[in-house]
Amino acid sequence: MIKVGIVGASGYTGVELARLLCNCPDVKLSVATSRQYNGKKLTDVYPNLTGMVDIVCEDLKTEELADRADLFFTAVPHQTAMAIVPDLLKAGKKVVDLSADFRLHDAEVYEKWYQNHTAPEYLAEAIYGLPELYRQQIAGARLVANPGCYPTSVILGLAPLLQAEAIEPETIIADSKSGASGAGRLPQTGSLFCEVADGFKAYKVAEHRHTPEMEQEISLLCKKPVTISFTPHLLPISRGILSTIYAKLTQAMSDSEVNEVYKSFYKDETFVRLCEPGSYPATNFVRGSNFCDIGVKIDNRTGRIVILSAIDNLVKGAAGQAVQNMNLMCNLPETQGLLSAPLFP
Amino acid sequence: MIKVGIVGASGYTGVELARLLCNCPDVKLSVATSRQYNGKKLTDVYPNLTGMVDIVCEDLKTEELADRADLFFTAVPHQTAMAIVPDLLKAGKKVVDLSADFRLHDAEVYEKWYQNHTAPEYLAEAIYGLPELYRQQIAGARLVANPGCYPTSVILGLAPLLQAEAIEPETIIADSKSGASGAGRLPQTGSLFCEVADGFKAYKVAEHRHTPEMEQEISLLCKKPVTISFTPHLLPISRGILSTIYAKLTQAMSDSEVNEVYKSFYKDETFVRLCEPGSYPATNFVRGSNFCDIGVKIDNRTGRIVILSAIDNLVKGAAGQAVQNMNLMCNLPETQGLLSAPLFP
Amino acid sequence: MIKVGIVGASGYTGVELARLLCNCPDVKLSVATSRQYNGKKLTDVYPNLTGMVDIVCEDLKTEELADRADLFFTAVPHQTAMAIVPDLLKAGKKVVDLSADFRLHDAEVYEKWYQNHTAPEYLAEAIYGLPELYRQQIAGARLVANPGCYPTSVILGLAPLLQAEAIEPETIIADSKSGASGAGRLPQTGSLFCEVADGFKAYKVAEHRHTPEMEQEISLLCKKPVTISFTPHLLPISRGILSTIYAKLTQAMSDSEVNEVYKSFYKDETFVRLCEPGSYPATNFVRGSNFCDIGVKIDNRTGRIVILSAIDNLVKGAAGQAVQNMNLMCNLPETQGLLSAPLFP
Amino acid sequence: MIKVGIVGASGYTGVELARLLCNCPDVKLSVATSRQYNGKKLTDVYPNLTGMVDIVCEDLKTEELADRADLFFTAVPHQTAMAIVPDLLKAGKKVVDLSADFRLHDAEVYEKWYQNHTAPEYLAEAIYGLPELYRQQIAGARLVANPGCYPTSVILGLAPLLQAEAIEPETIIADSKSGASGAGRLPQTGSLFCEVADGFKAYKVAEHRHTPEMEQEISLLCKKPVTISFTPHLLPISRGILSTIYAKLTQAMSDSEVNEVYKSFYKDETFVRLCEPGSYPATNFVRGSNFCDIGVKIDNRTGRIVILSAIDNLVKGAAGQAVQNMNLMCNLPETQGLLSAPLFP
Repeated sequence: MIKVGIVGASGYTGVELARLLCNCPDVKLSVATSRQYNGKKLTDVYPNLTGMVDIVCEDLKTEELADRADLFFTAVPHQTAMAIVPDLLKAGKKVVDLSADFRLHDAEVYEKWYQNHTAPEYLAEAIYGLPELYRQQIAGARLVANPGCYPTSVILGLAPLLQAEAIEPETIIADSKSGASGAGRLPQTGSLFCEVADGFKAYKVAEHRHTPEMEQEISLLCKKPVTISFTPHLLPISRGILSTIYAKLTQAMSDSEVNEVYKSFYKDETFVRLCEPGSYPATNFVRGSNFCDIGVKIDNRTGRIVILSAIDNLVKGAAGQAVQNMNLMCNLPETQGLLSAPLFP
Repeated sequence: MIKVGIVGASGYTGVELARLLCNCPDVKLSVATSRQYNGKKLTDVYPNLTGMVDIVCEDLKTEELADRADLFFTAVPHQTAMAIVPDLLKAGKKVVDLSADFRLHDAEVYEKWYQNHTAPEYLAEAIYGLPELYRQQIAGARLVANPGCYPTSVILGLAPLLQAEAIEPETIIADSKSGASGAGRLPQTGSLFCEVADGFKAYKVAEHRHTPEMEQEISLLCKKPVTISFTPHLLPISRGILSTIYAKLTQAMSDSEVNEVYKSFYKDETFVRLCEPGSYPATNFVRGSNFCDIGVKIDNRTGRIVILSAIDNLVKGAAGQAVQNMNLMCNLPETQGLLSAPLFP
Repeated sequence: MIKVGIVGASGYTGVELARLLCNCPDVKLSVATSRQYNGKKLTDVYPNLTGMVDIVCEDLKTEELADRADLFFTAVPHQTAMAIVPDLLKAGKKVVDLSADFRLHDAEVYEKWYQNHTAPEYLAEAIYGLPELYRQQIAGARLVANPGCYPTSVILGLAPLLQAEAIEPETIIADSKSGASGAGRLPQTGSLFCEVADGFKAYKVAEHRHTPEMEQEISLLCKKPVTISFTPHLLPISRGILSTIYAKLTQAMSDSEVNEVYKSFYKDETFVRLCEPGSYPATNFVRGSNFCDIGVKIDNRTGRIVILSAIDNLVKGAAGQAVQNMNLMCNLPETQGLLSAPLFP
Repeated sequence: MIKVGIVGASGYTGVELARLLCNCPDVKLSVATSRQYNGKKLTDVYPNLTGMVDIVCEDLKTEELADRADLFFTAVPHQTAMAIVPDLLKAGKKVVDLSADFRLHDAEVYEKWYQNHTAPEYLAEAIYGLPELYRQQIAGARLVANPGCYPTSVILGLAPLLQAEAIEPETIIADSKSGASGAGRLPQTGSLFCEVADGFKAYKVAEHRHTPEMEQEISLLCKKPVTISFTPHLLPISRGILSTIYAKLTQAMSDSEVNEVYKSFYKDETFVRLCEPGSYPATNFVRGSNFCDIGVKIDNRTGRIVILSAIDNLVKGAAGQAVQNMNLMCNLPETQGLLSAPLFP
């Protein structure tokens, strides 16, 4: 039995971890922290988990935390994570960090898009936690940087094409749409029901912090530095990301040829599902699950390919992928706790 | 390994059965029928189940069906069910019927609210499939009439009070609100997104067919014929029913006394969760699960009690309760396949 | 040209006043206050009004306010209103107060449900601003207490029956459902999109502060003190209230008789629309408008009547009714600015 | 007083025309046709218009129609329109056709994307009804082809840049998202609440029939044939389109320079509103109105510009633009009936 802790258990990502861990027979949630709800049962904050999860939120210092579990999920904001993670590692713990603090290999890039980095010495060691690309390294890691939600959908959508050199990387445009849970549970005007419902808009156009993360992984896949266009949008749904990705083909391809490229790349992947030609993914077909559904369309008129990639931002885009990483790091079956069917309708 | 069949697999209830059966290791879905999608994979109709369910829809006559499974879920409209169920029973099969055809013990009452009944000889045998009230009889039954969604929420909300003779039955008013999946997947104007979204209304006021079903069970619980007021409403959500139930108290009671009544009545029930005093249930805290959450409030100013009862209409209100009944009928653990946590947000 | 001011212009009710005043050719919005957005254009806060409203939010003391307009809408929380309204009246201004502070005639009742009242001397003078009941008094008033949203829907639904002595007042139960804009624009966890969307729940069961307001008006209509049951619920929509109201009939009535009672009572009312027998109102049929749609159903089985009453909580339930009151107080056509058709879908 | 008729009054576009015409004092709706609701009052189908619109739906042959009005809106599907419009023109009537049948100047292009054209002789005469580009021609036309909803948002977003030769036309990618009312009121599975709500997906990727319409207008603006990429998506909202448009800049530009281009191009346009630099449009800020809100962002990292363009698909994308065209064709004030403020929240 592996003991795990959630640092930041009362956010949407934290509680989603708690939900998924219910399905992991070999894992025990032994500690959950929340400054705001210190002393309250997690089920008082999230009554949906009543009868499923039995843990009280605590407000602990890192040194008090360390001996309470073997592996920690740090589900806290960037900048907070970098203050906690080093001490957990020093105490001999494994960490899956769900913040952005250890995703970028280059501290300079991090500091350009975020702020000062106080633990850059861990960047070289941290493994980017996308199992479909880095399964082996994750299995041997003590620090895994869990990917951002948007990058997960975009990179999984592009990887087969980049590896096959089928597209021109500098023409990549990722137009992504996310549900409101991506903004977290902090009360702010822009996240109110009346502001989000029955509406749709773009935000942080050409300025979103997930851009360098995508560029890092795309550049690694095509072995040269690449700059892309990325536009995030806010959907009036709670869960789900759909990324619509455009790129110029390096040479003409048929729909069936491109399907082969994807099938071959993802042939051993449980969590990537490929749509039949002519079908496209939908966020409501992956809701609550760790699947990434991908559909593609060759547009011969323009010489472009259009890739559609859908995930549940709280699962494959955060907590589910973190559990997948935990499974790899702890030598558990990779799919443990992650095989419940998407909820539709 | 028990083999089960779903008759009417392509409706929302049918596919929810398929989803839940994925989690039942001792059960195999061996046949699924759908006239409309005959020959198509169920996952072509419901891509959310891709990788989870592997079955092709068939259009079969009852005689062809019977030897394909040991137990059948008939998830077809009323009137269609009564034409199929008798033959399945004659072939020695067990049946959980999700239609209204075998819920009412009195054929006359059925014919008053529905239409002519062509198999009234099975009404005496059919067990009303609410395990919290009829667990033992269900375990021995070959025909279980799965309760309606509204009645499930209302009866579970009222049963402890009726048994304790704490309320005056003739003052019962059930004001219920249901998500749109209750109307099924048949294309009709009133079920279109643009008609339902961002709106709310009552329908079939004082005329809904679930009324006699509630009255039958309430009357049995208080051992005299009772007439109640019932108003269904359409919520702009996919899943969920919340029933707000009013009744006059027979004598003054405190909130804590009434809580004791509920705790005692439901002390052994996994799927009924009682809210702490001052808390009330919400449909989004039971979404995707087989739970019925109940909260109550004594209103001393008026001498009334208000009961709030929430279920997922597709799970505890239909497919989940049907699986619970199947488990009882087949001597499997009652909660098998039904313990995944509600999805929130 | 009448000059009007909005105190508290940046809340949902304040900005809805600004929207409706665009349609009033005889009225000029001359001042708008907002502490939070002091110095910002109202259209920076609400870009929907760009090109329609041209005013800058100010943070003004009451004495600075008074000479800026002839009539003021005070769209601020209760307790704040009672600190502002007396000074505006003393300065010779007319006031439509949208808070609860001057709705209850009895200071004791107010203090029991709210808190200490610091200006009880104005309670006797304040007119309850429901034009369908108090048109003449409103026309002569300098202080109008604009009704609460829930009470507007419930009282308009009940008034004809109470006047006709067709129901037993002590059996009244009002089960009301409101959109999320009723909770205002203050950021709080319970108002977040992810908490409200795709969900439904009751709140403040048997404890909501609109209860005494309804009881006051119902008691006046039936000329004796009445206590009612009232349960508010939160709908996953932005705008709209539907109240489902139950009462015992004093004697048997047909649907057509009861329709006559309503038709006769509301025969001169522009803003009350009666549904045809067998039809019921829906919140999405009044969205954005000042209409109150009412439908009724006699339930002979139980001897009860069910009344359905729908309004847009921000219009007839707040800003629209306030403009209607302003029109009456300023001797303008009562419907000025209020005749745009509801937006559907 | 101008008499107008609506052919196809019971669809979402037809009834939106009826709603907007309520606000036009110089125009009388004299006839409304609907095969499905022949003999029913339009307000029986759309109770939101009760008290606002008083007309009975009729099922009329074109020859019976013609003498009932001076101008007709044909709000019927493509292919149906081409069978009606010629006869109305021959009878001396003006027509605003809301179908696709007369939008494309080239019958061959039409037949490639749609089907056989039976009235190609009217293509040369039909004016593409985008007043911001063709105001003068519309004023003199007897047949105006009202633009598609997607093309309206995309062309208005691109026109200033194309005229200024600031972008490379062959790099244009339009990623558009539409509310569900765009699919009309015909009952079909894909338009059901449970299929659309809480979900998001692309459809007709690289194959949507609005593509040639955009290409026609873009080609005219840059005076050479252009092929673009266009992907439509389905939003879980009723009204609204947001188009996110990408193109390579022909030369470096600052945000303020590009803003000048837009300001200058749209300086006399009431219905185009430009967002402040750093702000972007949202569908819920144009809901119910004829506005097109546009925001732009220069992305210096990639040399691209991103244009965000939002409309209400039923208003500026259909019925509102049709009324604007009617105003021009009938020498009425262009903004008549179209100046009500967007409804938010």
